[in-house]
Amino acid sequence: MDLGELRELVAAATGEIPCDLVVRGVRLLNVHTGEVLPVDIGVKGGRVVQVAPDLPPGEREFAGKGLYAIPGFIDSHMHIESTLLTPAALAAAIVPHGTTCLLADPHEIANVAGLQGIRDFLGLLEGLPYRVFLQVPSRVPTAPGLETTGGYLDLPETEELLALPQAVALGELDPAKVLPPSAEHLAKVLYAQGTGKPPSGHAAGLTGPRLQAYAAAGLSDDHECVSFEELSERLRLGMTVLVREGSSERNLEELIAGVVREKLPTDGLCFCTDDKHPADILREGHLDWCVNRAIELGLSPWQAIRMASWNPARHFRLERDLGTIAPGRFADFLLCPTLAPVEPRYVFVGGRLVAAEGELLEAPSPPSPPPSSRGTVRLKRTPTKSDFLLPAAGEEVRVIELIPGQIVNRAGTATLQVAGGHAQPDLEGDVLPVACLERYGKTGNVALAFVRGFGLRRGAIASSVAHDHHNLLVVGTDPEDMLAAVEALVESQGGFVAVEGGEVRARLPLPWWGLLSARPLAEVVAGLEEVRAAARALGCPLPTPFMSLSFLGLPTVPELGLTDLGLVDVRAHRLVPVRLP
Amino acid sequence: MDLGELRELVAAATGEIPCDLVVRGVRLLNVHTGEVLPVDIGVKGGRVVQVAPDLPPGEREFAGKGLYAIPGFIDSHMHIESTLLTPAALAAAIVPHGTTCLLADPHEIANVAGLQGIRDFLGLLEGLPYRVFLQVPSRVPTAPGLETTGGYLDLPETEELLALPQAVALGELDPAKVLPPSAEHLAKVLYAQGTGKPPSGHAAGLTGPRLQAYAAAGLSDDHECVSFEELSERLRLGMTVLVREGSSERNLEELIAGVVREKLPTDGLCFCTDDKHPADILREGHLDWCVNRAIELGLSPWQAIRMASWNPARHFRLERDLGTIAPGRFADFLLCPTLAPVEPRYVFVGGRLVAAEGELLEAPSPPSPPPSSRGTVRLKRTPTKSDFLLPAAGEEVRVIELIPGQIVNRAGTATLQVAGGHAQPDLEGDVLPVACLERYGKTGNVALAFVRGFGLRRGAIASSVAHDHHNLLVVGTDPEDMLAAVEALVESQGGFVAVEGGEVRARLPLPWWGLLSARPLAEVVAGLEEVRAAARALGCPLPTPFMSLSFLGLPTVPELGLTDLGLVDVRAHRLVPVRLP
Repeated sequence: MDLGELRELVAAATGEIPCDLVVRGVRLLNVHTGEVLPVDIGVKGGRVVQVAPDLPPGEREFAGKGLYAIPGFIDSHMHIESTLLTPAALAAAIVPHGTTCLLADPHEIANVAGLQGIRDFLGLLEGLPYRVFLQVPSRVPTAPGLETTGGYLDLPETEELLALPQAVALGELDPAKVLPPSAEHLAKVLYAQGTGKPPSGHAAGLTGPRLQAYAAAGLSDDHECVSFEELSERLRLGMTVLVREGSSERNLEELIAGVVREKLPTDGLCFCTDDKHPADILREGHLDWCVNRAIELGLSPWQAIRMASWNPARHFRLERDLGTIAPGRFADFLLCPTLAPVEPRYVFVGGRLVAAEGELLEAPSPPSPPPSSRGTVRLKRTPTKSDFLLPAAGEEVRVIELIPGQIVNRAGTATLQVAGGHAQPDLEGDVLPVACLERYGKTGNVALAFVRGFGLRRGAIASSVAHDHHNLLVVGTDPEDMLAAVEALVESQGGFVAVEGGEVRARLPLPWWGLLSARPLAEVVAGLEEVRAAARALGCPLPTPFMSLSFLGLPTVPELGLTDLGLVDVRAHRLVPVRLP
Repeated sequence: MDLGELRELVAAATGEIPCDLVVRGVRLLNVHTGEVLPVDIGVKGGRVVQVAPDLPPGEREFAGKGLYAIPGFIDSHMHIESTLLTPAALAAAIVPHGTTCLLADPHEIANVAGLQGIRDFLGLLEGLPYRVFLQVPSRVPTAPGLETTGGYLDLPETEELLALPQAVALGELDPAKVLPPSAEHLAKVLYAQGTGKPPSGHAAGLTGPRLQAYAAAGLSDDHECVSFEELSERLRLGMTVLVREGSSERNLEELIAGVVREKLPTDGLCFCTDDKHPADILREGHLDWCVNRAIELGLSPWQAIRMASWNPARHFRLERDLGTIAPGRFADFLLCPTLAPVEPRYVFVGGRLVAAEGELLEAPSPPSPPPSSRGTVRLKRTPTKSDFLLPAAGEEVRVIELIPGQIVNRAGTATLQVAGGHAQPDLEGDVLPVACLERYGKTGNVALAFVRGFGLRRGAIASSVAHDHHNLLVVGTDPEDMLAAVEALVESQGGFVAVEGGEVRARLPLPWWGLLSARPLAEVVAGLEEVRAAARALGCPLPTPFMSLSFLGLPTVPELGLTDLGLVDVRAHRLVPVRLP
């Protein structure tokens, strides 16, 4: 805001000049006092300037018709990449549900394209009908030495990003970077604190002295609580808890039921989705789903709505601009027929009506792919069939065993048949080769391992989404189809693909950084369903086979992970051979 | 905090190295959850690192004996000058009462000595057994063109101060600077916001559209609420209300009774004293008085204690360091036998026991007067008796009429006798001459006017505390005594003095900036009582004659004020002649 704009706000508030817009006759839920009061809302320059009955006429008027006015919703932590959509395409999914602000950690883009990737991501945010703030990715790469990534954010680059006005936090720093302390990561924490931006946590399973050490190190919030006991322990330490309700991780019911039961204060609680897929958003909603579930579980509408507005604004120090319908703040608000459930009929952002009756009024124009997003699937050497064949020096191999519905896996073993000098897939025993191919044109690494749980009877599936390094992952029943699947991903510059008999059966291209589609919401949802169906047709029983595949890449989630450098024993934090000695 | 210190915190939290101190066996009131839990408190490097039962042994141990542990209290807005004490001497008054942090606006020092005055003030804060943060004076002078001040803080200087790590806010900007907007003051607001420091308000009596305009301009809090309606109106606008309970302005009962009655949430409320005299602190206490009164009025101990700790820490963005007993925060806490009332038995600051059983354990060493504090009473020319005589060109004069117990006054008139060519004091009618002498060696201005309400029958009293310009003010029954009083103030370089028959009857020297004593608490309290008694002996019926005198100087509080430039019609914001036309 500049001096001229501030003068205009003051002039409009005193009535010296007219408001741009007066939303007349609403029942405003005041997030500060919990009251519901009949008022008009006066807007100037995109901000609220007056909240009072009987305002003088504005240049435009909107009939509020006694609807409830509540602040627009803020998702306090999310990876926009999990939606597979560009920020522009995402608008259609979330804005009609009342989400007017995302605090996004573009961790995946950073791992693909580093600082330039983040800059290009920020460049995509102009002209959107919602706001996005940056949680600066804190661990790019997540597991240095165990994976090759396209991007690397060093300390100076992290500081450069933290200093940006769009940056609101240091993004989810995991305990491994603090306990024992890594100098580089503690320096990021201190720098973030120095800029007044909270370092965000990721304290999965942490408890007792280690949790206290983590809090003492400055990590100010956590979105990984799965039990009420974890929530309560964190609140007591002065940490903010971001109650997560995403696609696979769903913690809201357990946490909110406990808060209601124990009558805990809610001012240290926010909502986040972390990772939520577009089809789930379409079906359930977004932050409105969180608010309404919390009300069903026994929070008052005031408490639940505040968790989606004022609380995150305060925690991330955006309260000067967001989180309340009050003078000086952005005119981001929702008009709803009832407070329980909340079903936004009209969505205003910056005083502009951007969605009505569940539909975006004007889709943002599709953006051009930014430079760093293009050509990110670059194999240094052309792979061959033999990359997917394990020479049979021994028959006993380690196997990554999927656990249905979980992100963690089990380290198993298998004894494979040998034919033609190579260990053979065991279709009956569901032991299939899985390969990870470095895709940033750096090394040409290809690592091969075995996995149980995909259940493919033929063909192969592949993905360029592979947490957190996002190299190519391919699992299949034979090397020809694995090779074809990889070739298909190179051709489409990323995505999800299902191949059978050398033919692409279905493909969802994700050509932006190998992570995002360039297509609109409905097409992405349909494309994802198509490629999942194709995987099922190949025999895969998993509900979300490509998500399961992408999590195989994690070198940080027990027990085994596959990167381009090889098979990682996560607990031991080292590479291990596929063949058992 | 540097990297090494942060590493130590983490190491002590995990138990890798011992804590410096373990306070064992307390019942901790958790400000986040409202729970009371039995724990030990582990401290390392002045900060809390562990809050849990059964901590491992510390290098030192303190037996908590089941006492309640609560966070140290934060005064969210105060003018340290109102105590007449140096920050070191003030420790004895406030720390035993549990105040471990002051958010101080050294507005008076700034008006006397400008930027260097603030720098010197900050230099006095080292080694104190409590913390002081800076609310950067925003209007120095308060009434440009209507008063001569020693200091002037321009925009670059204000920005320099706001950028300091000790600065937490732009200090109380009054509505006159915003409505209509002054470019310089709005620029201060924008700069403060840019540094993440809230602009603080001073919205006395403001309501309706003007209050909304004031909030829209970015003023984030107010400590001038006198009615529950004002409090409620401000909370609804997202402003934080600092409930004030000082020496003369006492708003707590009215405000808190309303909050209790209407069951308003309290997380937007703090306590402050604004101006509280040392004798009142000695008699009543400080923040503990506020907390206990609020509990008596019906707030829960949790709500009241939070208003004195976590709430101000959050509003002023100190929550990383202050306001809760939790890992990573300064070990500033109180141990109390009961929660209602709160009577701190032990006070810890930075993990050091600084007060016990109502006494400071070690008085800070008396500081030397900083350069800018010395020699601030410099008259450009030697005054004479005739400065205090109004040549009798007319007999009808304006009179400042005191209103008992109030800071505002009434503009009256009087018809004075003329003798020897001069208008004569009217002792029977209680109309006395009052003069304001420029004291910064700049102009030699002397302004003369008349006042009703001091009731002096003989002699004169004078003060170098004269809001906000702090020139010399003297009121008396005859010019000889007025002259003698001024000479006494020059001699002592400021203070309060009572003179009769050319003799000093009592004097409290305030040689630091003409505002603060160099003496310890008890002596200042005794000296103040002595000089008040002397004024009473001269006939003055006012309970606090020197405070009444100092408020006469205000060119901003209706209806009349006297500065070195003359008599100010406050509402018209201009100088007016003493003689009526």
